[in-house]
Amino acid sequence: MSICLQEIGTIHTPYSLASGAPYQPVSDNDPAQRQFYVELDPAYAAGLHRLDSYAYLYLLFYVDRLTKPCRMQISPPWTDGAVTVGLFASRSPARPNPIGLSVVRLLSVEGARIYTSPLDVFDNTPLLDIKPYIRDLDTKTDANYGWIDDLPDKEHLMLHILGIPHEF
Amino acid sequence: MSICLQEIGTIHTPYSLASGAPYQPVSDNDPAQRQFYVELDPAYAAGLHRLDSYAYLYLLFYVDRLTKPCRMQISPPWTDGAVTVGLFASRSPARPNPIGLSVVRLLSVEGARIYTSPLDVFDNTPLLDIKPYIRDLDTKTDANYGWIDDLPDKEHLMLHILGIPHEF
Repeated sequence: MSICLQEIGTIHTPYSLASGAPYQPVSDNDPAQRQFYVELDPAYAAGLHRLDSYAYLYLLFYVDRLTKPCRMQISPPWTDGAVTVGLFASRSPARPNPIGLSVVRLLSVEGARIYTSPLDVFDNTPLLDIKPYIRDLDTKTDANYGWIDDLPDKEHLMLHILGIPHEF
Repeated sequence: MSICLQEIGTIHTPYSLASGAPYQPVSDNDPAQRQFYVELDPAYAAGLHRLDSYAYLYLLFYVDRLTKPCRMQISPPWTDGAVTVGLFASRSPARPNPIGLSVVRLLSVEGARIYTSPLDVFDNTPLLDIKPYIRDLDTKTDANYGWIDDLPDKEHLMLHILGIPHEF
């Protein structure tokens, strides 16, 4: 089966392949700088009606600049090689289908542009879809940290996962 | 830009185009019946290592049997035409890129097969990706219901959204 998708817009961030991107969203970003936004193809702008009633969105995007090969077992970079997990037990971008998924806070919708909280993608990343993140349906309060729970340095690693800047 | 994806497995459910699927997962399903599972292509089975440490997963899939056209403004079927919202403010499957996203509870991993809680897709739906749902990163406890909050019959509609069977 051939599954072909189209770019419906572009995600803009301050990150480039040269400068690098953090492993997860940086939480100390100043929203007033409006550095993170989605530019939807104007042909789809009518599809944004009432999107601004949501606090959070899912952004689905195509990881178009992979810098590492897709391997079935990986060692997350922030574990210093101490742990190996299956690719599907990780959020590594190098996947058989490199579809990225981020939950972002919606700041404002202005025409076909949507300002969001930070996300860890390169500038000009192709957008595939926007979905509302719906309380109860998507908020699993009994979710866990999986294998991260078993790591001796879990509290420190969570700072990396959540993109919270900290002293090493 | 041409973005082509591949089927990496198949999602199995009791639902067919003929029988129909609920709008959202049915929550009174008996897990012992094991009717909902993902059959991953065995070539990727090594990628499941330690997936079973997670309580919840994201499944990304290709909506291969759309029964309605993609329109930028829609009226969700359970609102009886009382409300019109933009497509991207809805979870309608008829999207420019028909990528479905469901949060499911992981029940067990057995070889290349993953048993899950119910999800509202047809049997034999092509799987695109599996990602771990990670507490904190994905659990937004201050998420809202968006425009659903403004509906006069919100409590009833939430039963539909959450797939909870009820008297009409």
